[in-house]
Amino acid sequence: MSETLPLSKPPFGKSSGLLVRQENPFNGGPDPRLLPGSSLTPNELFFVRNHGGIPEVDLGAFRLRVNGLVKRPLSLTLEEIRQLPRVTVAATLQCAGNRRLELMAVAPIPNELPWGTEAISTAEWTGVQLRDLLAAAEPRRRARHAAFTGLDEAERHGHRFNFGGSIPLEKAMGPEVLLAYEMNGEPLPPVHGAPLRVVVPGYIGARSVKWVSRIDLQEDPSDNYFQAKAYRLFPAGVGADTVDWDTGLMLGESPVNSVICAPGEGETLAAGPVAVRGWAMVGGGREVARVELSLDGGRTWTLASLDSGGDRWTWRQWDATFDLPAGRHEIVCRAWDSAAQTQPEHPAQVWNFKGYANNAWHRLSVTCA
Amino acid sequence: MSETLPLSKPPFGKSSGLLVRQENPFNGGPDPRLLPGSSLTPNELFFVRNHGGIPEVDLGAFRLRVNGLVKRPLSLTLEEIRQLPRVTVAATLQCAGNRRLELMAVAPIPNELPWGTEAISTAEWTGVQLRDLLAAAEPRRRARHAAFTGLDEAERHGHRFNFGGSIPLEKAMGPEVLLAYEMNGEPLPPVHGAPLRVVVPGYIGARSVKWVSRIDLQEDPSDNYFQAKAYRLFPAGVGADTVDWDTGLMLGESPVNSVICAPGEGETLAAGPVAVRGWAMVGGGREVARVELSLDGGRTWTLASLDSGGDRWTWRQWDATFDLPAGRHEIVCRAWDSAAQTQPEHPAQVWNFKGYANNAWHRLSVTCA
Repeated sequence: MSETLPLSKPPFGKSSGLLVRQENPFNGGPDPRLLPGSSLTPNELFFVRNHGGIPEVDLGAFRLRVNGLVKRPLSLTLEEIRQLPRVTVAATLQCAGNRRLELMAVAPIPNELPWGTEAISTAEWTGVQLRDLLAAAEPRRRARHAAFTGLDEAERHGHRFNFGGSIPLEKAMGPEVLLAYEMNGEPLPPVHGAPLRVVVPGYIGARSVKWVSRIDLQEDPSDNYFQAKAYRLFPAGVGADTVDWDTGLMLGESPVNSVICAPGEGETLAAGPVAVRGWAMVGGGREVARVELSLDGGRTWTLASLDSGGDRWTWRQWDATFDLPAGRHEIVCRAWDSAAQTQPEHPAQVWNFKGYANNAWHRLSVTCA
Repeated sequence: MSETLPLSKPPFGKSSGLLVRQENPFNGGPDPRLLPGSSLTPNELFFVRNHGGIPEVDLGAFRLRVNGLVKRPLSLTLEEIRQLPRVTVAATLQCAGNRRLELMAVAPIPNELPWGTEAISTAEWTGVQLRDLLAAAEPRRRARHAAFTGLDEAERHGHRFNFGGSIPLEKAMGPEVLLAYEMNGEPLPPVHGAPLRVVVPGYIGARSVKWVSRIDLQEDPSDNYFQAKAYRLFPAGVGADTVDWDTGLMLGESPVNSVICAPGEGETLAAGPVAVRGWAMVGGGREVARVELSLDGGRTWTLASLDSGGDRWTWRQWDATFDLPAGRHEIVCRAWDSAAQTQPEHPAQVWNFKGYANNAWHRLSVTCA
């Protein structure tokens, strides 16, 4: 937690419970110990991952344009978008860099945000289904990807450009993919992409482009820096000096993951029954099948209780209680998904020089007195 | 390989390259070193997983019945089925028990087949799309699962009954799910389910029910023994004495997996360039993103070359060449899928008392002289 900045009051209507990782652009996430027992994260605690400043949007002049491999290009006002059928989807968003700090402990990862476990949150998103818009635009047969461009500007390697990314058209046609204008029943806050953002449940957060103003159907993935070069998973042997940016795995669906939220790392507790709780998550519409906890480094495991969940696109909250004697204890967790996949043991086994997609077993130590 | 039986000539038109794991019912798979460099497995080498004998089917009297939560129950002759649009899909099938031998080396798994790495094969399947049949039957709104029943009989715990299993209706409606009557351009062989079998690409082999004669749409998964009790993944702490059969993960999509096919375990080779090859596979329509090989137990990794692949539902063949000096070498492989998921390090980390879904790093040792 030492990497958080000493902001007394976070901006943008955010709670002081936010762990701020960067002031400009603003990046932070909720202190895991403050997450409510319920599935939804209040807007003032929802994590923020920005690559640039928050654009000022002239709502009257705003148009969403749908172009590229479509037969009927669209240019829609916010009013026109709101007249389309309104849909609400509960979905967890997670930054691909969540849990990077554990990778940084294996080997340095310069120039990336040192996320702990807090770059993840869940909301009910309300808006229109992207597939409704695309159907109106009539995709051409060659279209394979939907590329999104935001109004925010990022700066990389001396260039300023709009943030963007893409998803396969097959995913874009899923009923869960929204252009959202409300978040947890409130108007979408500016820091989360108002007036309109993409929400791509089950994919890394970077594909849920905020302040979206352009959608292009095309044969190939977006050539935006944040799709074509960043947010790729490279083998462990590749570094900044040797990387061929066109070769890494373009991140999409999130792998199965789980984290202990409470107690916190290093806490001192009274010996006796200790409640442990956290979340588990998997992308792609798969289900979290179970969460296991170990007090002996993974030799034996105990099942945690999963909440009823039931929303296909959200994390599952879990809890377990252990009777801990006095002394130091390491608690380890791992999850399994419905495809019989589980998490790798060590962060070193998934280390990559950009620090993405860490889903190693989560560990923390407590002392009982 | 010592667990294979000394059959001089396997039955059912199978090649002598089959490693036979059981004579009755007949179970075996291709010696991995005999797999061709290409993606498809010849019919005479394709692995066989039977739970009972091969039923004798009266082709004239045969009817496929579609019942349950449908508005128009169907009863179709083979001729009527062949008049539906004909589709070919290349798909890999893999038994959920593949690589059980490595789990057996961790702790005993009695009464299960000791599969090495050979319970997997790939074919081009030709038949009709299940969704065409289901559309004709008009599923009712409450239907959630498609249950299949075969004509073969298995015996478990003193009961004889037909083999069966089910898949979610959402999967059943996918264009890749077939009722197949041809395999690699030949009539479907009896040992592989003639006259008609289900092919469920991306799922464990047990859901691709052979000799299928009944399809029932229903609210819940099949209550057949092989869906309701067997082919579930239980936590490592659960054993035959403590199991609550209704609680394990019902296996469906296969996890990411990879195996070294050649050289073989324990081979002695000439020092110098050594060609290593194998396959990688993931279920659910995800893609194999890369395969990595290690000569130092997983501290550093080298990328293998993947074949062009391109078929969404098939394994990928890979190869790599290492310059090996004289001495003993352990070769390790692991794959990554498009959801940034990779394999766990040790079989002990995925051990379960039924021995399913082992996708630990694959290791073998060779000696160079």
